[in-house]
Amino acid sequence: MKLYSAYMAPSPRRSRMALAEKGITGVEVINIDLAGGENLKPEFRERNRMAKVPVLELDDGTCISEGSAIYRYLEEIQPEPNLLGRTAVEKAIIEMWDRRLENALFMPIGQCFQHTSGFFKDRMTPIAEWGQEAGKLAGKFLPVLEQQLEKHEYVAGDRFSVADITALCSLEFGKVIQLRITDEFPAIQRWHAHMKARPSYTA
Amino acid sequence: MKLYSAYMAPSPRRSRMALAEKGITGVEVINIDLAGGENLKPEFRERNRMAKVPVLELDDGTCISEGSAIYRYLEEIQPEPNLLGRTAVEKAIIEMWDRRLENALFMPIGQCFQHTSGFFKDRMTPIAEWGQEAGKLAGKFLPVLEQQLEKHEYVAGDRFSVADITALCSLEFGKVIQLRITDEFPAIQRWHAHMKARPSYTA
Repeated sequence: MKLYSAYMAPSPRRSRMALAEKGITGVEVINIDLAGGENLKPEFRERNRMAKVPVLELDDGTCISEGSAIYRYLEEIQPEPNLLGRTAVEKAIIEMWDRRLENALFMPIGQCFQHTSGFFKDRMTPIAEWGQEAGKLAGKFLPVLEQQLEKHEYVAGDRFSVADITALCSLEFGKVIQLRITDEFPAIQRWHAHMKARPSYTA
Repeated sequence: MKLYSAYMAPSPRRSRMALAEKGITGVEVINIDLAGGENLKPEFRERNRMAKVPVLELDDGTCISEGSAIYRYLEEIQPEPNLLGRTAVEKAIIEMWDRRLENALFMPIGQCFQHTSGFFKDRMTPIAEWGQEAGKLAGKFLPVLEQQLEKHEYVAGDRFSVADITALCSLEFGKVIQLRITDEFPAIQRWHAHMKARPSYTA
């Protein structure tokens, strides 16, 4: 398998961490130059017409894009350690938290970054006012996460799951928009220290 | 089980259609008055702290929110007819298309509606310029969907899946932002006619 990734980008980091947590080795990681527009070229669009990383390319050439779809594929081919839940309820709760994180934290951070920095202004129309608003929306999710981590060791409950990976990749990318895990959020800080100690952290 | 839903809203329609496709009956549907802010009240936030519909409440009081988490739960408790795929690759491809639709069609339509109409201006800051841009982004996904439906009978391949439900609920909600399936998109029109003929269409 090959993973099309990019330095510093939060989405492909989710896939690299999931590979590391599963102990799946031997995947060739190919870094795409997003700033230089390598993802916009026809040869990349053939792998993902949405022109985004990550893309997991299987040995038969099948290309899987979207981070959550890569989570799903990896769970299917290597069920242990389990990252997506075992019972119907646990699977649903992990999916619920992963999606909350994507919608209310990961994407607003990305929107704030793209619309206030103009990083991709060669290929999109930045609207600074929207970027600032998106940044505020991301910040509003921190109390929700704090409340959850006051009650549970991990984001989706009492064991590690993809929701922890999504939360970590979102929050650490949040630095680019000055989103900080301040002392107002001691439960997130405790959880963050645990995440940093996992071998997958540097994947 | 109870489903917290809302008239006209596209997200809970996805859950109602999945219930209908699965043939799951006896679910009490409770309509929440979004315009009146019923979803913002404490008794609803106890069910979903994100204050959004749909929410599926199980008989033991467990509440599952986020449309994709409800898809997952329903697939687990009633595997047939299968809506989320059978093989590892098929599961991943369905997830990939469902997520593309959410990110590139469903959400931009919602953003355009909310930011240009001011429908929720009592609880958010509409930025008209962003709403207009989001509407353009939604329109840019139609050629991608057209190309896929030229090659396949259904959105994620050769059989019906949750991706068809998400596509249908997105496109039909698109009417509120004047997104139309014009004659430029004959494959989407063909697929749309098939979707309308399914019993789940009126769920």
